[in-house]
Amino acid sequence: MSETIFSKIIHGDIPCHKIYEDDLVLSFLDVSPLSEGHTLVIPKQPARTLDEVDEPTAAALGRALVKVSRAVKKVTGCDAYNVLQNNEAAAHQAVFHVHFHIIPKPNPREGLGISWPSRSLDQSGAKEFAQKLAAAVY
Amino acid sequence: MSETIFSKIIHGDIPCHKIYEDDLVLSFLDVSPLSEGHTLVIPKQPARTLDEVDEPTAAALGRALVKVSRAVKKVTGCDAYNVLQNNEAAAHQAVFHVHFHIIPKPNPREGLGISWPSRSLDQSGAKEFAQKLAAAVY
Repeated sequence: MSETIFSKIIHGDIPCHKIYEDDLVLSFLDVSPLSEGHTLVIPKQPARTLDEVDEPTAAALGRALVKVSRAVKKVTGCDAYNVLQNNEAAAHQAVFHVHFHIIPKPNPREGLGISWPSRSLDQSGAKEFAQKLAAAVY
Repeated sequence: MSETIFSKIIHGDIPCHKIYEDDLVLSFLDVSPLSEGHTLVIPKQPARTLDEVDEPTAAALGRALVKVSRAVKKVTGCDAYNVLQNNEAAAHQAVFHVHFHIIPKPNPREGLGISWPSRSLDQSGAKEFAQKLAAAVY
């Protein structure tokens, strides 16, 4: 994987405002926040998208997301927040190293804006489709 | 925590189209998908928001997110996808049991719609603010 701003932060070539670090993950303030307390949690493994992450790192990301969310909620005093991880440019990924956003939602103007064009699940094919997905988990 | 549609699914009182299950987490198709392959990953622990999740469950969620994302990407053939977890109604949470969405983004019309009202980090207070957050991680 080519170098990104996040791999440079991991290697200490670019500074960050660190929140949390262990052997497998790093967390720091986003420099372009959507709201106060907008924080990133990234793996040290150089993975472009979430599906590339190895199992120990996946577990470490899960643990760190919970720990850092607690800190963000406590310090900002904002109970509402979104956790978002984007894969590929079409899904709004801008830095091609896996990163989870923890974004407080203090009011309608600040934080993540979401639109939700949902429809009903096509029940006729859903059973078979779920079985295909289940068989593809690895 | 009061019963939700997800606790009923966990207890088998409501059916689902299951994708993955282990001792700590369950994954199934969203019945109101934003795109084909829209899948949920939830903890069996009855937690309302992510910060309430215990450490073994946090790790299991991280592992399951990666595994199920691989399956969704493979079966849908869609490389772009968003992983989203909402906490509290102000942040778009509709069912008050923790759930991560894995949402393929096959085209601009389908999948998650995002708006991103970012600003620059106030560097003057950022160091101290990050230290407060770091001290609040638990």
